[in-house]
Amino acid sequence: MVERAGLPLPWRLTPERWHIAAKRYAKLSKRLAISFGDGSPAHDVDLAKAEILLCVGNDSPALIPRAPHLKWIQATAASVERFVGSVPSSIILTNASGADPKKSGEYCMTAMLMLNHRVPHFTTSQRAAKWDPLWSTPIEGKTAIIIGTGAIGSATARRAKPFGMKLIGISRTGKANPLFHKMAKTKDLKKYLPQADFVVVATPLTPETQNLLDRSALDLLPKQAGVINVARGLIMDYEALAEKLTKGELAGAILDVFPQEPLPPDSPLWNTPNLIISAHCAVDDRDFHIDHVFDIFYDNFTRYLGGKPMRNRVDLKRGY
Amino acid sequence: MVERAGLPLPWRLTPERWHIAAKRYAKLSKRLAISFGDGSPAHDVDLAKAEILLCVGNDSPALIPRAPHLKWIQATAASVERFVGSVPSSIILTNASGADPKKSGEYCMTAMLMLNHRVPHFTTSQRAAKWDPLWSTPIEGKTAIIIGTGAIGSATARRAKPFGMKLIGISRTGKANPLFHKMAKTKDLKKYLPQADFVVVATPLTPETQNLLDRSALDLLPKQAGVINVARGLIMDYEALAEKLTKGELAGAILDVFPQEPLPPDSPLWNTPNLIISAHCAVDDRDFHIDHVFDIFYDNFTRYLGGKPMRNRVDLKRGY
Repeated sequence: MVERAGLPLPWRLTPERWHIAAKRYAKLSKRLAISFGDGSPAHDVDLAKAEILLCVGNDSPALIPRAPHLKWIQATAASVERFVGSVPSSIILTNASGADPKKSGEYCMTAMLMLNHRVPHFTTSQRAAKWDPLWSTPIEGKTAIIIGTGAIGSATARRAKPFGMKLIGISRTGKANPLFHKMAKTKDLKKYLPQADFVVVATPLTPETQNLLDRSALDLLPKQAGVINVARGLIMDYEALAEKLTKGELAGAILDVFPQEPLPPDSPLWNTPNLIISAHCAVDDRDFHIDHVFDIFYDNFTRYLGGKPMRNRVDLKRGY
Repeated sequence: MVERAGLPLPWRLTPERWHIAAKRYAKLSKRLAISFGDGSPAHDVDLAKAEILLCVGNDSPALIPRAPHLKWIQATAASVERFVGSVPSSIILTNASGADPKKSGEYCMTAMLMLNHRVPHFTTSQRAAKWDPLWSTPIEGKTAIIIGTGAIGSATARRAKPFGMKLIGISRTGKANPLFHKMAKTKDLKKYLPQADFVVVATPLTPETQNLLDRSALDLLPKQAGVINVARGLIMDYEALAEKLTKGELAGAILDVFPQEPLPPDSPLWNTPNLIISAHCAVDDRDFHIDHVFDIFYDNFTRYLGGKPMRNRVDLKRGY
């Protein structure tokens, strides 16, 4: 297990956290010889013997060449686009997709409600010390397009259900899904955008989703629509988005992810009207993310021992 | 019906809006001789004959002396504290409490979710162009103290239920209410404040609730608590609240109402950290508020004709 120094709290793979999880999986834990390290040269002796690697994922490229016996990497993050290219096909890569669906689904629902009640309008006028009333109507009956119907998108749909919203799910295959009133393929997204009151981006970054919401796609959204991105910045054209927000061509946006993170202090996004920015905190559960990752890890460890198909296995070619 | 010039959209008592409602109550409408006016001297002839007045409420003091035959005022607002003292005991006053429970309950739930996900922290750091991650946990199992268990408080409890929150309701009588896990009397509020993750103020302004959340009450809240006020500014000590927010002694606050509205441009609240301000838009439904008021009005008109107890009748002594 590799914990890079300085990782934020939700992702820390500490011995204390492992011990809590190991109690739940006492028998399985006996079959593991575990070494904790920070990936520094002092860790090389253990890496040389390692068969399984549990790490934040982005550390893999630096670790793989030092671990010749490596057979399986369990990443503690859901997104693997930054290092998937450096994982050889002989290694199984599993990610932490779906670790915290309660947290991420709740966050996306919160963001839709905020857009519905025009909170970005109010935070914008607050910065100008301007009293500028703008009334709303309940969210019932309004339409959300949820791009990505995996763990986050499904959890969002579950949270949206009691609010009586209309949910359109977008996935690569467009396969029917009882959580959504309508499913469609990623390539048909543009057909549906004009119906959106809200768009939630919760899909992995892949060649197919990169710049999926480009200027021409954003231009299809109605003026009252609000946009949410908790996935990856590069899926959307933020320059076009900022222009539309500034011109009042969209109701608002809530962005948690950016092409460059931390978002640089001189980014014009900080001052874009009708936009609320958070710091890549939408998805991971502060207290239980690593705990949930251990659940995935031990489930996979059982499968690994039994030679069964792994959960959350990343298709190295597709990239997620 | 009196529509003061310049009223914002949700409250406009226009002939068009009345005609829509009158279709739903065709028989009853035939028993009404209706006059629309703006309360100016041109309206005096009609006011001299008026038996029933439908108006925003705050206009009543200027209208009552000019309407000697007045028997009943139906206010289009829920709050009557600014004019209830000028209504003589010979006149029945009914308010619009509970007109838009879906809207207000949804707003209060939105505000709790925003506080849970530390949105006020992010809007504060956004103003400083500062990337400052702060992770949360889901709202499930957290405790909300809802002060006021009328239409807004009850609608909030209904919305909170699917999120698995613990709900403590505070009312004058503390009478049991199945929507809340625990009910308590207003005078016992302080006992419960140390348990709060969220406090929602949704109670009328009365001598009993004025300054109810004073400095000593706010000091009882734990550091992770968030505060919401959609009722009346004078129920809370905003100076003490701003101090606590600035010192980081509370997680955040969402305020929709203020002692003086519009909030003056030089108010220090605009720049208070961890605070989100909206412009008294939390409760009223943009499109359907007046429609809902007409429903209350026609229900009351039936009762009025039949000499039955009126719905939403204001106790002129208690003030709500």
